[in-house]
Amino acid sequence: MQTIKPDMGDLPYVIGPYKEPIASVRPGETFRVETLDAFADKVDSPDADLAKIVRVPYVNPCTGPIYVEGAEPGDTLTVRVDDIVLPRDYAVSAIIPDFGGVCGTVLTRVLNAPLEQRLLLHPITAEGIVHDPSLNIPPIPIEAFYGTIGTAPAVEAVSTLSAGFHGGNLDAADVCPGNVVMLPVQVPGALLFIGDGHAAQGDAEICGVAAETPTVGTLTVGLVKGRAIPTPRIENNEFIMSVGSARPLEDAARVAFYDLVTWVEADYGLDRFAAYQLASQVAKVRLANVVDVLYSIVAKFPKRYLPGA
Amino acid sequence: MQTIKPDMGDLPYVIGPYKEPIASVRPGETFRVETLDAFADKVDSPDADLAKIVRVPYVNPCTGPIYVEGAEPGDTLTVRVDDIVLPRDYAVSAIIPDFGGVCGTVLTRVLNAPLEQRLLLHPITAEGIVHDPSLNIPPIPIEAFYGTIGTAPAVEAVSTLSAGFHGGNLDAADVCPGNVVMLPVQVPGALLFIGDGHAAQGDAEICGVAAETPTVGTLTVGLVKGRAIPTPRIENNEFIMSVGSARPLEDAARVAFYDLVTWVEADYGLDRFAAYQLASQVAKVRLANVVDVLYSIVAKFPKRYLPGA
Amino acid sequence: MQTIKPDMGDLPYVIGPYKEPIASVRPGETFRVETLDAFADKVDSPDADLAKIVRVPYVNPCTGPIYVEGAEPGDTLTVRVDDIVLPRDYAVSAIIPDFGGVCGTVLTRVLNAPLEQRLLLHPITAEGIVHDPSLNIPPIPIEAFYGTIGTAPAVEAVSTLSAGFHGGNLDAADVCPGNVVMLPVQVPGALLFIGDGHAAQGDAEICGVAAETPTVGTLTVGLVKGRAIPTPRIENNEFIMSVGSARPLEDAARVAFYDLVTWVEADYGLDRFAAYQLASQVAKVRLANVVDVLYSIVAKFPKRYLPGA
Amino acid sequence: MQTIKPDMGDLPYVIGPYKEPIASVRPGETFRVETLDAFADKVDSPDADLAKIVRVPYVNPCTGPIYVEGAEPGDTLTVRVDDIVLPRDYAVSAIIPDFGGVCGTVLTRVLNAPLEQRLLLHPITAEGIVHDPSLNIPPIPIEAFYGTIGTAPAVEAVSTLSAGFHGGNLDAADVCPGNVVMLPVQVPGALLFIGDGHAAQGDAEICGVAAETPTVGTLTVGLVKGRAIPTPRIENNEFIMSVGSARPLEDAARVAFYDLVTWVEADYGLDRFAAYQLASQVAKVRLANVVDVLYSIVAKFPKRYLPGA
Repeated sequence: MQTIKPDMGDLPYVIGPYKEPIASVRPGETFRVETLDAFADKVDSPDADLAKIVRVPYVNPCTGPIYVEGAEPGDTLTVRVDDIVLPRDYAVSAIIPDFGGVCGTVLTRVLNAPLEQRLLLHPITAEGIVHDPSLNIPPIPIEAFYGTIGTAPAVEAVSTLSAGFHGGNLDAADVCPGNVVMLPVQVPGALLFIGDGHAAQGDAEICGVAAETPTVGTLTVGLVKGRAIPTPRIENNEFIMSVGSARPLEDAARVAFYDLVTWVEADYGLDRFAAYQLASQVAKVRLANVVDVLYSIVAKFPKRYLPGA
Repeated sequence: MQTIKPDMGDLPYVIGPYKEPIASVRPGETFRVETLDAFADKVDSPDADLAKIVRVPYVNPCTGPIYVEGAEPGDTLTVRVDDIVLPRDYAVSAIIPDFGGVCGTVLTRVLNAPLEQRLLLHPITAEGIVHDPSLNIPPIPIEAFYGTIGTAPAVEAVSTLSAGFHGGNLDAADVCPGNVVMLPVQVPGALLFIGDGHAAQGDAEICGVAAETPTVGTLTVGLVKGRAIPTPRIENNEFIMSVGSARPLEDAARVAFYDLVTWVEADYGLDRFAAYQLASQVAKVRLANVVDVLYSIVAKFPKRYLPGA
Repeated sequence: MQTIKPDMGDLPYVIGPYKEPIASVRPGETFRVETLDAFADKVDSPDADLAKIVRVPYVNPCTGPIYVEGAEPGDTLTVRVDDIVLPRDYAVSAIIPDFGGVCGTVLTRVLNAPLEQRLLLHPITAEGIVHDPSLNIPPIPIEAFYGTIGTAPAVEAVSTLSAGFHGGNLDAADVCPGNVVMLPVQVPGALLFIGDGHAAQGDAEICGVAAETPTVGTLTVGLVKGRAIPTPRIENNEFIMSVGSARPLEDAARVAFYDLVTWVEADYGLDRFAAYQLASQVAKVRLANVVDVLYSIVAKFPKRYLPGA
Repeated sequence: MQTIKPDMGDLPYVIGPYKEPIASVRPGETFRVETLDAFADKVDSPDADLAKIVRVPYVNPCTGPIYVEGAEPGDTLTVRVDDIVLPRDYAVSAIIPDFGGVCGTVLTRVLNAPLEQRLLLHPITAEGIVHDPSLNIPPIPIEAFYGTIGTAPAVEAVSTLSAGFHGGNLDAADVCPGNVVMLPVQVPGALLFIGDGHAAQGDAEICGVAAETPTVGTLTVGLVKGRAIPTPRIENNEFIMSVGSARPLEDAARVAFYDLVTWVEADYGLDRFAAYQLASQVAKVRLANVVDVLYSIVAKFPKRYLPGA
């Protein structure tokens, strides 16, 4: 099994078509991939000066691009997440000035004084994640996933902090072992980027940072030839899921549900308005994040309510 | 046990201080309350002409106001939902032109042609809700709750279709048996309004309508004297929850999480930034609706991670 | 000419159908109306404690309701602003914590520390408004208008700080002498409320407060029988204008332009898509405010480009 | 005077650092630049099939990148627009399905049927722009400007349909002869891109398309060494202006006014809260567009009210 490591000499901070592939995989191939954490593994103390370590846009480096043999524009790339191992014994989280969900940011600009930086190193133990050893609370179970996964747009190179129809920084805990992520292929070879491992994350990722961690993952890629999807999708035994990334947050919900409803129409034989009305009663939603450049929502349709399921 | 029925001669379509109480309850009292569905129980056929039945603002009639003895401005009213019984053997849902989450509306105005009305009557059986007998899908389990619950603002009379710091049309499935809803008291007697029973609803209530049903519920009210809350809260064994209602949807998230974080600070001894950072890893979110006059989000903090829990 | 004064014993802080009229006017009648400033004329020193004077929701008192004889639901009320006189020799402005356009607010909730209150009394002289005598800048020309004008909704009583299809706190400088404001009639007598005089205001009213002033105005009302409008409109020699009030701000723009385009279609014989495309080239927009409970935008179609003009 | 023409063999559809410069200019140099219209000059009939001509992301080609000698990250590039000549005798506008301000779009996704395409060719005459010869309305005066102007971000390549801190598709009529546009320098040589000429445009560009036209412009560039700006700025004799591009639209207003207020603070000696309060009374706003990937607002401070002006 090949192992793909981050390109330490030229870490990508955008998802786009302009960087040469660092590895190549075949459809059906299972491979290992290593990722750095969102701070490039540079935080090793709660006293670190984050402002020096994190200089936008040099944040959230990905591993990639990974070339998928045979992938052509108009195909869909499937990425099954088989496993995520956390090789480091701590995760990092932070409050970062002008970033987060309940504070002024560079876009929701305010004249109020910015929040102060806070760094926390969370020990990772066999029992889970110790948020803060000084607090008497139980460890948080590890639920590892990739915050960032995407394929190159045709001409844009999008910050790894942002998201869109190409995937990107979704911060959706559904990008986890057992699930298959579907991404559009817009350039030859698809050019997959992946990173931003999270040991755990609450819905909304409200302060802007999860339990950030490097990862060693195992992935299996596949191709659906000649079939395009308009926005990222995820599937597991229980749900089909559509991801919407936009601002304002209701537009993310619109993108996600529009795709979910028309997906049910196209693949499961319900007309779109019947699907819309049924979704109104059975859908589940994950508010993935309300902090990134674009916010992300995952709309989920339980498979048990799909006709013929 | 007293039973409070809707005032059929003067159904309230606003939550406000201007209507005389229809009943009075004491703190600690358990009572029964009957509610009409959002269409005033007038839909009895899928061929009904909804445009005649539903003439905004005469939609979503509540039962109330209910006067709570001893409630004074600055107190908090607690409403424990003990039970909800569904007295009718069907629920109603609909696609309503210019209303819903993935279509043009009276606020998200578009020049595209409106969607067409669709009415569905869902049989309610012992096995659950039959969404559409013509579809071969399993019944949807009944998870009854109140879509609308609120107390009178001091001077405003707010449409029962809208929401706010006073509660209102939250469409949050957490207003269900086993949970305690906390609402601000802004006028003497609190003036509680309740209605909009849902037999079940998906997250986001995406087409704008759940499985609408009349209810016979059992409630127990209480008062927290001299302590005000800034936005509705909900509590059960597992979570403390804050509800934010606003547009755009990210503002609803901000209101909900701001309250959740400062609630943890005030009652559980964590400073607000520590609570913010911890919430970023353990919070759960329900996207209650993205269809009403104001959208609602429920931010939830698991009690097991509260210091001292 | 009758003079209508504010009801000092029961100042209205909502626009709704629940308060008895304080005066009655006939269609075609020209009358005088006096209004208090948004702080009820209570600020007479820059050292005033605004937190004591301004206790939400008791802010922005209006004069009204004024009963318009013969007005029935489905009619349109026209209010021509003939004149606005400023009877006080200073205006008041303020930075108010948790209120404004570039800061955290009660809806755009942030954990950042709130801004500090600042009060300014602006002398009004023959040359204009002296923003701050300590600054060496020219006086600001007086362009007086009403920040708040509206008619009672059918069942809601809406805070005078908010806005909507009934009008309300638009903070649109087009509600000024020479212009005719059109408002929907939703209850018998229309029930007109007016107030919130501004000696001048910048577009967006960015800090949340204009040059606030009491007024003595002269108005002439009229009725368009049997013709309803969906949102407030304004007209003068140069423009027909539609007002949209909503959040997010793009929804305010959608409401305003939808009405403007369909108005041109209905009254000037251009199909709606032709009007849409023409508006794309000739429309003017005033960003009235981005600070109130709902934001307001005025979309303007120059009359010279109306077919047949 | 050198003339810079679009690179017809490799038209840029992104503003980024990945394309080689097509020309080089010196600070102080005045040069001529030719641009294609947003449809690459391919529309020559109202019956053209726009869906074939406009295939996202291959829309709105720019001329560039233009290398500015001596420009280094941290500098500010100034671009004075000296003149814009329209070499073609017609402009093009269109209603494009899933694009525009009062309709469903790819982000504000709706299940309503999309609008139908409409193309219009507007003759340009000595009297102005003839919107539609079949309408009896006066010609629209030519007020030519560039819809798109920007400099390369450090690592991102942003669609020429989008905007941001680097400039881009602002669709702000203030990018016109007589005005100086300031843009951040983030890569050596700044890498200026320019295009999207508009013969005229209404505020908001409401249907999504202005009077699109090729241009021959004359520009003069300059550098402010060692001084960075956080968002595009524009200046003329009357105003200093800050441009905010974001969604929702209120965030665009926040970005614009935050910069305007802190600019007044930094350069004109007013503290930021005094500037905020003064802006609340004297600022002007242009709603540049509410249709593009990000919406843009121009906040303007009249120079006459700047201390010392």
